[in-house]
Amino acid sequence: MKVTEVDRLTCPVARTLAVVGDTWTLLIVKECFLGTRRFEDFADQLQASTRIVADRLAKLTAAGILEKSPYGRHANRYDYKLTEKGIDLYPVILSIVQWGDRWASDGGDRPLRLVDRETGRPVAPVLTGSGDAEPLDPRRTRPQMSSAMAAQRARLARGGEV
Amino acid sequence: MKVTEVDRLTCPVARTLAVVGDTWTLLIVKECFLGTRRFEDFADQLQASTRIVADRLAKLTAAGILEKSPYGRHANRYDYKLTEKGIDLYPVILSIVQWGDRWASDGGDRPLRLVDRETGRPVAPVLTGSGDAEPLDPRRTRPQMSSAMAAQRARLARGGEV
Repeated sequence: MKVTEVDRLTCPVARTLAVVGDTWTLLIVKECFLGTRRFEDFADQLQASTRIVADRLAKLTAAGILEKSPYGRHANRYDYKLTEKGIDLYPVILSIVQWGDRWASDGGDRPLRLVDRETGRPVAPVLTGSGDAEPLDPRRTRPQMSSAMAAQRARLARGGEV
Repeated sequence: MKVTEVDRLTCPVARTLAVVGDTWTLLIVKECFLGTRRFEDFADQLQASTRIVADRLAKLTAAGILEKSPYGRHANRYDYKLTEKGIDLYPVILSIVQWGDRWASDGGDRPLRLVDRETGRPVAPVLTGSGDAEPLDPRRTRPQMSSAMAAQRARLARGGEV
């Protein structure tokens, strides 16, 4: 079976990964949660080729995970924004962040923390089995970056290198 | 930047996906959570080529996510088992299951549910921001499959097709 055909399996993991099971795809979704919305910014922050960014944005839009809307006076320039289907990937991205914090750290400060948008208090996501726990609402939290991550992103935004 | 170099980014999502950001890789990890342990069974259940299965098992073992141990009298046959680092991917896999249930269903019964290993009661994973919630322990839950998913897996285990 080809990797594009794994949605022929009944398994929900296979059916999900048929849509988003790709590094660049998930990194673009992550960028959206960090507030990135424009083609050039995805390319800068991910240091990905324009061919790859264009391909993944088109696929994510076709899958209904992103929606695009024109911006400014340029008819062919778009803002990309997560739909409800895209926002629903929040637990996937946060679980990946947590694994990375524990198992793929570069030894520096934790790069990405979550804080309550109103109170600024740290929020520690937990995957629990208690049915009465309140689900984390992405609209009520915001990411807070370490100085190292913020500095790297500022450098990339200026067209600098990793 | 090549996809294999995304761990040069400080972002924990990039650093994690540099290790597991691939459909076959995550499907093998998922199979481990379902109890699959042997080369032939990964290949059968995922309908993946032996080249791909061998490549991903080797990478997951090198990354310390799986460990292999010889079985039976065959010195070159191995059981693959999740390490602690691998078991820590449970929230990632469960979050993917949940997204699939909502957005990539084939319209049939929910294929994969989680039940308490002792009581058999359904467990509904929730990603919460309440720091006092008890994390879901993979050793205390087991998957329960829909009849459609169980039937497909039985067919694949007999060498049948999707």
